Amino acid sequence: MRKICVVVTARASYSRIRTVLTAICAHPFLELQLVITSSALLDRFGNIIPMLEKDRFEVSAKIANLLDVEDRTASAKTTGLAAIELATFFGNHRPDIVVTIADRFETIATAITAVNMNIPLAHIQGGEITGNVDDRIRNSVTQLADIHFTATETARQRIISMGIPAEKVHYTGCPSIDLIHERRREAFNPYAIYGGVGAMPDLIGPYLIVVQHPVTTEACHSRWQIENTLKAVEILQIPSLWFWPNADPGTFGTSEGINVFRERGNKAPIHFFRNMESGHFIQLLRKCACLVGNSSVGIREGSSLGLPVVNIGSRQRGRERGPNVIDTRPETAAIASAVQQQLAHGPYTPTHVYGNGYAGEAIATHLASVPLIIKKHCNLTSS
Amino acid sequence: MRKICVVVTARASYSRIRTVLTAICAHPFLELQLVITSSALLDRFGNIIPMLEKDRFEVSAKIANLLDVEDRTASAKTTGLAAIELATFFGNHRPDIVVTIADRFETIATAITAVNMNIPLAHIQGGEITGNVDDRIRNSVTQLADIHFTATETARQRIISMGIPAEKVHYTGCPSIDLIHERRREAFNPYAIYGGVGAMPDLIGPYLIVVQHPVTTEACHSRWQIENTLKAVEILQIPSLWFWPNADPGTFGTSEGINVFRERGNKAPIHFFRNMESGHFIQLLRKCACLVGNSSVGIREGSSLGLPVVNIGSRQRGRERGPNVIDTRPETAAIASAVQQQLAHGPYTPTHVYGNGYAGEAIATHLASVPLIIKKHCNLTSS
Amino acid sequence: MRKICVVVTARASYSRIRTVLTAICAHPFLELQLVITSSALLDRFGNIIPMLEKDRFEVSAKIANLLDVEDRTASAKTTGLAAIELATFFGNHRPDIVVTIADRFETIATAITAVNMNIPLAHIQGGEITGNVDDRIRNSVTQLADIHFTATETARQRIISMGIPAEKVHYTGCPSIDLIHERRREAFNPYAIYGGVGAMPDLIGPYLIVVQHPVTTEACHSRWQIENTLKAVEILQIPSLWFWPNADPGTFGTSEGINVFRERGNKAPIHFFRNMESGHFIQLLRKCACLVGNSSVGIREGSSLGLPVVNIGSRQRGRERGPNVIDTRPETAAIASAVQQQLAHGPYTPTHVYGNGYAGEAIATHLASVPLIIKKHCNLTSS
Amino acid sequence: MRKICVVVTARASYSRIRTVLTAICAHPFLELQLVITSSALLDRFGNIIPMLEKDRFEVSAKIANLLDVEDRTASAKTTGLAAIELATFFGNHRPDIVVTIADRFETIATAITAVNMNIPLAHIQGGEITGNVDDRIRNSVTQLADIHFTATETARQRIISMGIPAEKVHYTGCPSIDLIHERRREAFNPYAIYGGVGAMPDLIGPYLIVVQHPVTTEACHSRWQIENTLKAVEILQIPSLWFWPNADPGTFGTSEGINVFRERGNKAPIHFFRNMESGHFIQLLRKCACLVGNSSVGIREGSSLGLPVVNIGSRQRGRERGPNVIDTRPETAAIASAVQQQLAHGPYTPTHVYGNGYAGEAIATHLASVPLIIKKHCNLTSS
Repeated sequence: MRKICVVVTARASYSRIRTVLTAICAHPFLELQLVITSSALLDRFGNIIPMLEKDRFEVSAKIANLLDVEDRTASAKTTGLAAIELATFFGNHRPDIVVTIADRFETIATAITAVNMNIPLAHIQGGEITGNVDDRIRNSVTQLADIHFTATETARQRIISMGIPAEKVHYTGCPSIDLIHERRREAFNPYAIYGGVGAMPDLIGPYLIVVQHPVTTEACHSRWQIENTLKAVEILQIPSLWFWPNADPGTFGTSEGINVFRERGNKAPIHFFRNMESGHFIQLLRKCACLVGNSSVGIREGSSLGLPVVNIGSRQRGRERGPNVIDTRPETAAIASAVQQQLAHGPYTPTHVYGNGYAGEAIATHLASVPLIIKKHCNLTSS
Repeated sequence: MRKICVVVTARASYSRIRTVLTAICAHPFLELQLVITSSALLDRFGNIIPMLEKDRFEVSAKIANLLDVEDRTASAKTTGLAAIELATFFGNHRPDIVVTIADRFETIATAITAVNMNIPLAHIQGGEITGNVDDRIRNSVTQLADIHFTATETARQRIISMGIPAEKVHYTGCPSIDLIHERRREAFNPYAIYGGVGAMPDLIGPYLIVVQHPVTTEACHSRWQIENTLKAVEILQIPSLWFWPNADPGTFGTSEGINVFRERGNKAPIHFFRNMESGHFIQLLRKCACLVGNSSVGIREGSSLGLPVVNIGSRQRGRERGPNVIDTRPETAAIASAVQQQLAHGPYTPTHVYGNGYAGEAIATHLASVPLIIKKHCNLTSS
Repeated sequence: MRKICVVVTARASYSRIRTVLTAICAHPFLELQLVITSSALLDRFGNIIPMLEKDRFEVSAKIANLLDVEDRTASAKTTGLAAIELATFFGNHRPDIVVTIADRFETIATAITAVNMNIPLAHIQGGEITGNVDDRIRNSVTQLADIHFTATETARQRIISMGIPAEKVHYTGCPSIDLIHERRREAFNPYAIYGGVGAMPDLIGPYLIVVQHPVTTEACHSRWQIENTLKAVEILQIPSLWFWPNADPGTFGTSEGINVFRERGNKAPIHFFRNMESGHFIQLLRKCACLVGNSSVGIREGSSLGLPVVNIGSRQRGRERGPNVIDTRPETAAIASAVQQQLAHGPYTPTHVYGNGYAGEAIATHLASVPLIIKKHCNLTSS
Repeated sequence: MRKICVVVTARASYSRIRTVLTAICAHPFLELQLVITSSALLDRFGNIIPMLEKDRFEVSAKIANLLDVEDRTASAKTTGLAAIELATFFGNHRPDIVVTIADRFETIATAITAVNMNIPLAHIQGGEITGNVDDRIRNSVTQLADIHFTATETARQRIISMGIPAEKVHYTGCPSIDLIHERRREAFNPYAIYGGVGAMPDLIGPYLIVVQHPVTTEACHSRWQIENTLKAVEILQIPSLWFWPNADPGTFGTSEGINVFRERGNKAPIHFFRNMESGHFIQLLRKCACLVGNSSVGIREGSSLGLPVVNIGSRQRGRERGPNVIDTRPETAAIASAVQQQLAHGPYTPTHVYGNGYAGEAIATHLASVPLIIKKHCNLTSS
């Protein structure tokens, strides 16, 4: 049995990795060690523990490490704490392979700790380009990793061109796309299940979904950026479901912008959710008239669904995209106009650049069979 | 005035960076912030504080972070602690550029903290290949850095081929080579100045210098590897100056090998030093008949000096080298034979692959003039 | 010159220590090292950096260490981080005496670090009883401290009865009382200076001040406890100035209670402030008809001012108090009734159990003259 | 089932707690969570993991946290790291009671973390006096603890006099004394089993056992203090078994003193051990002519055995002792003379001040039955 330790640091990463977890648990030669940390443990950023319980994954350890984020030292200290505590977990539970996901700042803590402890490291979603500081983190993790699972063929080529041997880089597609291909669920009432605050517009006609995170390199601009999107949606007066931002630098500006907007007594038909189980989220996406904001969901899942997307600002710059995306600057008029253009266009033809729905199984199969050339823990104390 | 924060984590790095520090201090537009951490603070690995005092560099902060190294978690936790405490230093002292050096595991803490705090990061000695885990750390830091100063032209090309824009990568040569070109010092008695233990062989005739560190990916082999080198030198019966290893994983095996060898009552004319000021070390190198072990000094400084070198094992695999190096496996007979071959050959013609002696000044000039495209700290709390 | 390092971890502690800082700075033989950490750095709990700038105190270091507080590990990790980072500060700046204040959970990090580093520790406000977990922290710090400055004579006796030698325990009074005796300031408009949200009732007639923190041992009750106070004040319909709670366990419940109350569209004449400079706060206290909540201000400053106080719940249980305090359970009817009783009574005769207004100077004088029987740092590395 | 988490930080503490662990495991209503940390994980200070395996205790987690000890920040940072990582363990494993032992600096990390997390804390061996910084740590932990198990009746009275309610303080005797009463083991050859270095004197005639730790408040004197003891034993020329010191501040001086003594080529019949399983150690104690040094073993176990003891210096000052102890200053002549006096006297009549051999069972019984007045974890996130 190979012990596979997956470290999940954020709600968004859980959606990206869920079918991998399922495939690891189902695999006869793999044993899952699941570590949850950072914003994935906090209610206000989307605590995933209840989702894990519902999905029947057993949590091996919770590591609370998120510092209060008003200060620029927060990410660095959060990363440092993760490195320290993951070392203890890896030392006590001795995984054969550690899996880290994508490009959030905490992922490098998982990566560097695995490398420091001589444990083979698998990285999911390397080789992409988003045009901000995440690129550095992602490429840095790529250089640390032993095994690479990419979401697109282009990403695979890019990793190889960075000097990584081709046999270590596998194009499996993005596991989040697997969810698109899962059996559809029954209809549900999101207000009843997920609470949240604000108006409760009827979702029978066209509605928007808005997901806008702070841009980490533009943290001090997060307040007016979110305000411009809020104004655009207010002007449009279309029913909207708005999701809370990630715990990145700048998140206070984003949150405060939303809070002040709400207190000011807006009349727009917007409902605000803290978070949502990914199956439910996808179901809402399917019927959504347009996705607005800067989440990668629009570009990844959006391409498979043919979903009209208005992508705001620099956060997804450089990410491969299908024809379903219109990019705009973070300005009220530009956003409102792009949304109207997408509403006029309606659904696009799906494309499959991000995979065909079997990424989870493909990754588990590789994890079970990849030769572990880095030797196992040797008994240092007796050497 | 630009504030340049240089983080030094090991005795070896100080030798690599000294002429850069001098050039920063001498530059009218630069102000030096010098942070000393990790093994550079510990007597048994070569505390550099007395050297800094002698060289008249003011230390801005000492950050003790090295964990006890019997356990594989040590490097990871040391890295995590460095990330946490460097964040506080950077937050309080607000450097304009942070400089990190080479490829030790702690260098990535400096790098990731600078990136997390949106401070431009300069990396010295990226783009090299040594064939072990250090390659990953080095390349990972390259992906995080904003400005790159390489020791060789080949290294510069390699960084560019990894996807880094050419205008950010500067071939300056290795600052350690600058020391070779400094004015020669007076003769000195190393036993009187540096103490140490063991025989005190006369250094008028040919002598060896031995520097052998544990190989981090072969930590559990460090004991027999050092024993084979000890046996080879014992067989040769040539006067030898032996330097203590770095605080890497496996260092206990290396240290214990040396201690047991000494207690066993060896008769070889070997003197063991904890550490030595780099100017003195270079002076000993100049007159040395052959350098033995796995230090990069043999390959870098050795090429500029035309010094005969016997390079043992995998630690320097892949590093560019001049004709002065013979590589051997870590076996007693192979080592002894290679040393005899080098003694028979004598000095080589110097080559200048690692620079022409002006690296320190070149780096300082770039640090003063490079456009800082990453914007300065914005006031997050008021956003 | 003796270097005196004062570590301030919360807005409330700054008010408690301000006249001590002034007296240290004014003393010819003392030099102040001021370290700010924990919630004292965060806007939403009352960032004291702007107050320090206004009061012209220079900050030696800011140490951000507060973890996100949804989880019970937060206080413990915040304490651990403080211990680690204070060690670096003390090691680099070598204070002669470290000063810690009162009984918040972070104060023990200051204390244990000073003791571990063999630096004499002074404790302000030991020997009191409040009837909750703070008692343990406070008494634990008392056992670690070398010098004790108490707010009351009873507290001094209590410390001596715990086995501390009487010559180490000094009754100086509480420095917060010094502020009461400072020259009165001009009238000011709190809404204009401190912003905040909610109604802006006229303060010419009688008004309440409300300060209610979560009780750390009753963290999961903080939500309904704050709701009962909110309801009581709503029923009373008296103009009220409400101050935001500390960052203690349970603070999310308290905050959420306030936020939901506000969103529900209450009609009570309440204004909510994040924080206030202590001089201004005291000026509001002087004219206040009744202080409501569980802050120690009611008991300490309140006794010197003869201020009517309604003290709710268990947080101040056991603290010495004058006749000006009525204690109630955290129930709406009981609170409302007690407030009405105090309004009917009006101001009380001041008592001076917490000192006569010269605590700051007395403490500085002791710090300058106390024999430092614990020897200074010896050079361990050369031993 | 109550989950009892015992945190062991040093070899010495394991001997003190072993019969408690056995009794917890044997108790039908208790479940043991065993956490090993600090010097208890390091070979050179007596790694207890092999002993635990031999004694068939399952380790729940190992937490490596010891920093390199050349620097005065080490203890503080080690304590901070322990606080951080124990919080994660307690959060994940939710013990009903946490048990901490005696007075080493790391014990306060266990204590403060339990208190910060609202978990009842039991303290073993509070209320004693040893006359150094350990007193502060011990009394500080006493103030934090909910349940107290003392080694002597005097210690119980002392805790009560510090203000702790009598019903929370139980005189159970010291668990280390239980080992004295265990069934005697067969004869064994300590050199064969435990290795070590130096002479291997015959143990049929009279022999000494030497255990001398650095005194934490006299860390810079540890080198000459150990040298004086070494000289005294060298002068006496009596067969001696010498045990390695704890990882306290000053330990480098102690270790270096021993190493230099050995390298100097001493001719004394001394054997040096790193560590020894406590059952074996006691067996050697029984037949020992005199115990020399500053370990508490001489005073505790020594009194039950009637063992002649020469207690050097200030480390045990204030600890209750039987008539079997002669105290001396750390001077060569005084030590040698006191040993000769004890050899002339021979064995003493045993006294039972430290208990009757049933401490482990008594403590387990209390842990199973004590009312847990501090309420269990409440679900903060939903409050």
